[in-house]
Amino acid sequence: MSDKIKENSKKYNLHSWSAQGKLNPTVVTDAKGIYFWDDKGNKYFDMSSQLVNMNIGHGNKKVIEAIKFQADKLTYIAPGYAIDVKSELAEKIIEIAPDNMGKVFFTLGGTDANENAIKIAKMYTGRNKVFSRYRSYHGSTYGSANLTGEPRRYVSEPGIPGFIKFFDPYIYRESIAFNSEEEATVFYLAKLREQIVYENSTTVAAIFLETVTGSNGVIIPPKGYLKGIRDICDEFGIMMVCDEVMCGYGRTGTWFACDNWDVKPDMITFAKGITCGYVPLGGVLVSKDIAGFFNDNPLMCGLTYSGHPIGCAAGLATLEVYKEEKLIENSKSMGKVLGEELEILKTKHKSVGDVRYIGLFSSIELIKNTVTREALVPYGKDPEGIMGKILGMLKEKGFSTYTHENIIIVAPPLIIKEEEIKEAMAIMDEVLDYVDSLVVED
Amino acid sequence: MSDKIKENSKKYNLHSWSAQGKLNPTVVTDAKGIYFWDDKGNKYFDMSSQLVNMNIGHGNKKVIEAIKFQADKLTYIAPGYAIDVKSELAEKIIEIAPDNMGKVFFTLGGTDANENAIKIAKMYTGRNKVFSRYRSYHGSTYGSANLTGEPRRYVSEPGIPGFIKFFDPYIYRESIAFNSEEEATVFYLAKLREQIVYENSTTVAAIFLETVTGSNGVIIPPKGYLKGIRDICDEFGIMMVCDEVMCGYGRTGTWFACDNWDVKPDMITFAKGITCGYVPLGGVLVSKDIAGFFNDNPLMCGLTYSGHPIGCAAGLATLEVYKEEKLIENSKSMGKVLGEELEILKTKHKSVGDVRYIGLFSSIELIKNTVTREALVPYGKDPEGIMGKILGMLKEKGFSTYTHENIIIVAPPLIIKEEEIKEAMAIMDEVLDYVDSLVVED
Repeated sequence: MSDKIKENSKKYNLHSWSAQGKLNPTVVTDAKGIYFWDDKGNKYFDMSSQLVNMNIGHGNKKVIEAIKFQADKLTYIAPGYAIDVKSELAEKIIEIAPDNMGKVFFTLGGTDANENAIKIAKMYTGRNKVFSRYRSYHGSTYGSANLTGEPRRYVSEPGIPGFIKFFDPYIYRESIAFNSEEEATVFYLAKLREQIVYENSTTVAAIFLETVTGSNGVIIPPKGYLKGIRDICDEFGIMMVCDEVMCGYGRTGTWFACDNWDVKPDMITFAKGITCGYVPLGGVLVSKDIAGFFNDNPLMCGLTYSGHPIGCAAGLATLEVYKEEKLIENSKSMGKVLGEELEILKTKHKSVGDVRYIGLFSSIELIKNTVTREALVPYGKDPEGIMGKILGMLKEKGFSTYTHENIIIVAPPLIIKEEEIKEAMAIMDEVLDYVDSLVVED
Repeated sequence: MSDKIKENSKKYNLHSWSAQGKLNPTVVTDAKGIYFWDDKGNKYFDMSSQLVNMNIGHGNKKVIEAIKFQADKLTYIAPGYAIDVKSELAEKIIEIAPDNMGKVFFTLGGTDANENAIKIAKMYTGRNKVFSRYRSYHGSTYGSANLTGEPRRYVSEPGIPGFIKFFDPYIYRESIAFNSEEEATVFYLAKLREQIVYENSTTVAAIFLETVTGSNGVIIPPKGYLKGIRDICDEFGIMMVCDEVMCGYGRTGTWFACDNWDVKPDMITFAKGITCGYVPLGGVLVSKDIAGFFNDNPLMCGLTYSGHPIGCAAGLATLEVYKEEKLIENSKSMGKVLGEELEILKTKHKSVGDVRYIGLFSSIELIKNTVTREALVPYGKDPEGIMGKILGMLKEKGFSTYTHENIIIVAPPLIIKEEEIKEAMAIMDEVLDYVDSLVVED
């Protein structure tokens, strides 16, 4: 039976981001809490929450019951109609969002959330250019892919006119040595402001940024950086759009990642954590000012499944789970435990160049030279399959996650307990012993 | 309660394609079969199947049970894994698709299906330009919006380099009078071929077209047209991509609309009818040739919810409903009944300039001058709100649908019966009496 599933999957399914011929997809048969199981009965710690979306863990009964209840009640109605769960979920999201937020436009995922935020920024400002950062991922449809600052954009080129990239504060690999986070912030903001001026500030509609850069390696903004972005946006009338598809809904220990720095963007895009993948849902939070603008101006956004009833029902239940199980608080307190574990690994293993963490969102950056900080694998390639081998060793021992370039992502479900973190990170510790053997000193 | 829903919907939800201030959304509380009900107990014939997606009708028990079963079993797992429902659904879709089709890439809806088809065509051909037609709608994200040939594209401009538009065979409003469908086909194909040559045929990756143009007014290809497109694509090595988001899955009386003309595209994009909106799902069908290419070349496509378990479970159940209830056959036979009704209306009402129909996919084109065929409202505007008034009169009498420019869409669920068609179309007949009063002869 499971052989047939795998065979059919290889025969009929196109799988993401891969050459299909070499694939040997694991057949998954069950998932519960922070674990999932393959068809051979192997159990895995889900240490990436799948694609950093399974925040509440697998198989949550409350959300499942909400889906089943809504399936019986009303599965679908066009987005032009008002329905209970759609308006209630928007209200509940506004309640937990920064207090300048006014309305929600629902989408199906993160990429269409960003697509719609681009359009909203252009309509609201009457401007055309959009700034975003290298080492960012915003989605795979054309607009979001053109926001994206890494190789997953390339197939969506030639690029859309007016999509401009700037550099993010990736301090660990900067050629300049900063004396402090504040000094780095001054540098990056000055370069951005300079670039905006040279691009003609009056044509810039929006700056998009992942509040905490996610799949490109959990890159956390230095002190004062987001506040500085807010100031630049205010100075030039530019919309500040925080992409919280990955980092929103408790991942960083607060409802939204921007709450960590008390910054209020003009828009927040979200997906993943709002339903934790139980049903696809995403959306754009817009400020009261933006919402007001569209009272008189047509919102040229739309999709068949905007505000899908089952998605909204799942979202409402998911928000209740966060609250009832105190998962935002748990993300913060367990994040401290995870951070301590990561610091120990960094001290112990010479292959660990850097560890970065906020809440339960973290990464381990692997190097092969402790002096030069040379990445364990060169950018954009891994001819010897080293990262794949490391992932395989982790998986073999029951630790499931994913990597990006020379970086391992660690972002478990927010329900994880202290002893579970320690048990899982002991596996990481073992595998890093092997990685240490790859380090070549000068 | 329902007042609160409406109030909250206006307060917290951004609604599609509208200025929000004037909205007064109907609160929908229930839906069953071909009907739905508002909070005042008013019952409506769903004569557009919502957004031409509710093919199997509302509240189908089989699909609901499939959703509930899958919710209990496994709600989500990342797309890299193999799961039963994802591979089985792909197999079942391949079974009903044209026999050149090989694999399925699952998305969440139509717009991301088209986005991925663009990328696949570019990767497969190594070419960059993409042709699509005026009077088409392919979606609202940047790539699909740039395929789109009507005003919903404008906010996604400046356009993406290399997206080229050509004219569709909209014979009813062409300035040339053709002696036959075949003559029209020769004309349109010759113009297209000429344009491809002038754009440099060796740079053209794909031609996208709605097999039957949907929301722009159910424009049906004349005899030989699709076969001619296929020939042009073969001549120049261009991918033929049929967008069947609206017209696929029985809407036109065959599984896929291209089956009506025995044409085999290189890709078919789909959404809507595969799950009828019960859970969001879309996808791209690719030919065996294309599928084979990606054995060795990385497929640079991906989304968190590709092949979502609940979406796939709903899709499997929906396909069974089509088969068990013989809905493809019903679409064809009831389409004849609907066509006869439409011809009667055209004969009877001077405001009806044209009726177009295939299966249960049809439109009524309203004019205000029987000699000049001048549209009832000018293109892109309706300053007196005439079309809105007509829609309102239909709705008041229990006939729910939508309009586009001067065109009323009629596309009921494929489960509709003869007496129901007649009952609903009697309402249309009444309302057209009023529309006739707006006709001003020369």
